[in-house]
Amino acid sequence: MTIQEIATIIHGDVVGNAHHQIIMPAKIEEATSEHITFLANKKYLDFMTNSKAGCVIISKALFSAEMKGNFILVDDAYTAFTKLLSLYVAQQNTEISPQAFIHQSAKIGQQVQLFPFVFIGENVRIGNNCIIYSNVSIYKDCVIGDNCIIHANAVIGSDGFGFAQLSDGSYQKIPQLGNVIIEDDCEIGANTCIDRATLGSTIIRKGVKLDNLIQVAHNVEIGEHTVIAAQTGISGSTKIGHHNRIGGQVGFVGHIHVAPYTQINAQSAVASSVKNEHTAISGTPAIDIKQHFKATVVYKNLPELERTVRNLQAEIEKLKSKD
Amino acid sequence: MTIQEIATIIHGDVVGNAHHQIIMPAKIEEATSEHITFLANKKYLDFMTNSKAGCVIISKALFSAEMKGNFILVDDAYTAFTKLLSLYVAQQNTEISPQAFIHQSAKIGQQVQLFPFVFIGENVRIGNNCIIYSNVSIYKDCVIGDNCIIHANAVIGSDGFGFAQLSDGSYQKIPQLGNVIIEDDCEIGANTCIDRATLGSTIIRKGVKLDNLIQVAHNVEIGEHTVIAAQTGISGSTKIGHHNRIGGQVGFVGHIHVAPYTQINAQSAVASSVKNEHTAISGTPAIDIKQHFKATVVYKNLPELERTVRNLQAEIEKLKSKD
Amino acid sequence: MTIQEIATIIHGDVVGNAHHQIIMPAKIEEATSEHITFLANKKYLDFMTNSKAGCVIISKALFSAEMKGNFILVDDAYTAFTKLLSLYVAQQNTEISPQAFIHQSAKIGQQVQLFPFVFIGENVRIGNNCIIYSNVSIYKDCVIGDNCIIHANAVIGSDGFGFAQLSDGSYQKIPQLGNVIIEDDCEIGANTCIDRATLGSTIIRKGVKLDNLIQVAHNVEIGEHTVIAAQTGISGSTKIGHHNRIGGQVGFVGHIHVAPYTQINAQSAVASSVKNEHTAISGTPAIDIKQHFKATVVYKNLPELERTVRNLQAEIEKLKSKD
Repeated sequence: MTIQEIATIIHGDVVGNAHHQIIMPAKIEEATSEHITFLANKKYLDFMTNSKAGCVIISKALFSAEMKGNFILVDDAYTAFTKLLSLYVAQQNTEISPQAFIHQSAKIGQQVQLFPFVFIGENVRIGNNCIIYSNVSIYKDCVIGDNCIIHANAVIGSDGFGFAQLSDGSYQKIPQLGNVIIEDDCEIGANTCIDRATLGSTIIRKGVKLDNLIQVAHNVEIGEHTVIAAQTGISGSTKIGHHNRIGGQVGFVGHIHVAPYTQINAQSAVASSVKNEHTAISGTPAIDIKQHFKATVVYKNLPELERTVRNLQAEIEKLKSKD
Repeated sequence: MTIQEIATIIHGDVVGNAHHQIIMPAKIEEATSEHITFLANKKYLDFMTNSKAGCVIISKALFSAEMKGNFILVDDAYTAFTKLLSLYVAQQNTEISPQAFIHQSAKIGQQVQLFPFVFIGENVRIGNNCIIYSNVSIYKDCVIGDNCIIHANAVIGSDGFGFAQLSDGSYQKIPQLGNVIIEDDCEIGANTCIDRATLGSTIIRKGVKLDNLIQVAHNVEIGEHTVIAAQTGISGSTKIGHHNRIGGQVGFVGHIHVAPYTQINAQSAVASSVKNEHTAISGTPAIDIKQHFKATVVYKNLPELERTVRNLQAEIEKLKSKD
Repeated sequence: MTIQEIATIIHGDVVGNAHHQIIMPAKIEEATSEHITFLANKKYLDFMTNSKAGCVIISKALFSAEMKGNFILVDDAYTAFTKLLSLYVAQQNTEISPQAFIHQSAKIGQQVQLFPFVFIGENVRIGNNCIIYSNVSIYKDCVIGDNCIIHANAVIGSDGFGFAQLSDGSYQKIPQLGNVIIEDDCEIGANTCIDRATLGSTIIRKGVKLDNLIQVAHNVEIGEHTVIAAQTGISGSTKIGHHNRIGGQVGFVGHIHVAPYTQINAQSAVASSVKNEHTAISGTPAIDIKQHFKATVVYKNLPELERTVRNLQAEIEKLKSKD
């Protein structure tokens, strides 16, 4: 593509050689003459001096006439570059690998890409425009919406962890007969597990983004546009509201409700329901984030605090003996 | 199946139309005329009013003559429904997928179901009545007992994490020549990893239930009928007793022993052996669960405690100056 | 192999029948006449009494003339045995499974073993002498060096977790166009995930050893000869120095730098950069390891400390009233 063609797509103005050919995007410090890159933050202006990029998409506010090279001037270089990247990715062909397994009763939508060694079980339904990477396992009866991406080796619909203890101390499996529903526009990370419901459905609502190695137990529900970082685990039947932002390695106990717009710090243990929207929490067990940060400061100095208390004891003993 | 046929299986009494046909089980709030559901808790009695279920298995104590519809009366509706679900699941045919890989030296028992893309290595032995879901990897020499379920993408027998540091600071691999033995009646969760022993065996005893994304390191042993929730990790050579109940995201250091019937709270760090049976522990590092809960209460108010101590210091200074 | 042949390989002296045939290595307590084992620690001398091993590799310092059986005497029995194990493992043939998927544009080196259901994407390059176990997924453009081992179901090159929040609260995917580079002599554990960079590369330097179920986010760099235990997670753009030793279930926030030779205790939360080499840290958030251990001791007794403070308050009130 020429710089002019790219400028037309991202609605920018060319400064320099509009006919120069660009092959792919790159980081500003690694870009050579066949690459296009971007500059959206004055912090990175220094990189311009030595840049060998074939073209720089630059926010108008940062551009100055002395700069050498080819440029596309736009209002917001970051947004423009992201748009360009999306187009670059979308050029890839979609296809269904002959080495994927699709049960004859499953239904797959239009423009779906299935990589090798994907397993699609009985009665599974997959919407349009989905990408499912290699070695993903989708158990029977699960439903995936449109525009979803499921990364490699994720497992959708494995049995919930449900057992009844018998009088001899052993456990009997409680059959897990529900399914998993993933609504439109979701992304599921590599090696993430979403268990099927005992009865009914484990539900991942529209626009949810799950990172890698996350555990979602049976009958959980995650609200629209909630994002969850890697290695977090959610116990059975917990309902998480919409627009939550949840850090990595967080744990949730079962059967609680978390209000919409909750923000949860990494490694927290959420041990009870969060009732008010727009709450920020942290800690094990999780409490108000500000209260928790104050507590961690004291925690570091606990040995000193203990010494202070011991000294006070001694001083009081002295005072008492003087009485 | 007719309601009468189901009633015979679960030893219940029919009220209503015994000839009505049922196709599958469902949740009470979702059941329609072809479904059977259950009512075992008076909390859910309200659901009865609008239920369209073809049949409800109901505990005798909850049934009243005014209720409309078809019923099977039993002593304990929950137990009866669970029995029915198990039969429903068992109807599925078992088969070995032609897209599973089985090494020619491996031995597979009767009534085993292998899903596509299962890898069974050299000399692996698998007992009878096992289900191994898609994309599971079982390394060579591992042994699986009867009636085991291994969920998708689990890894059995990967190398233990063993390296010897050389004088130049680099690491030399210590070959891991042992195996993994999983005894009868175990269930292994999706994406769970069980490493082979350096020499000898990593052992999962009879009836153990492991949830998803669990890490079991080399030479670990887990005692009979212990259940472990998701994302817990057990370091090398640790021995866990029988009938433990272990929460999610727990960590165990290596080379410790945990007594039988220990209960461990989620996110705990077990840093030393647990010597007495029937102990309950929690925290990082894990201590007696009651002591830990008291400590967490004080922890939340640490900034306040510190302020109190500061005030006491000031008061004592005042008292001293008066002397 | 005869005992004499083995002795020649490990530079030892035979005592006993040098022509006895050995088939494989075993633990001292399990070895029978076809096995070879080792004794390097006087703690295990008692096992000698009942050992049925066909041969024992023994450190010279531990050998005494009364011992019965066949022996190979060496300076350090442990090192010699490890060398033997490595040879034993290396005897296995390397081969590329016809059930692995290799994109036509990928380049695979010499002496590479690919197990069934390995997925190798477009333009991937793999060096010499690598073993890649079953169900591993390697996304396009990733680069693996020489002498690497990647365990089953690991994922290399999945998309980084990058989204831009739009004004309506939903998230737009930021395309992840970089790759993953794994240098020579690395070992990657089962079910571990290494995300590709947004632009540029996520880099695992020479000699790094990663355990199972680890999360490495986009644009992370891990320095040479660093070892990381299971279930640890590293957030985006964090740079970890060389020769770190990192425990299990540790979490790192994004965009920090960790100095070389840092030691990090299991379950820690590394919330800020570590500036000095040879630092040892622990805790949530991680602080100096000694300071943290002192704090944990006080933590256990927090309720008692609080009672002490309350008592002091009462005593001071008494003293004040006497004034």
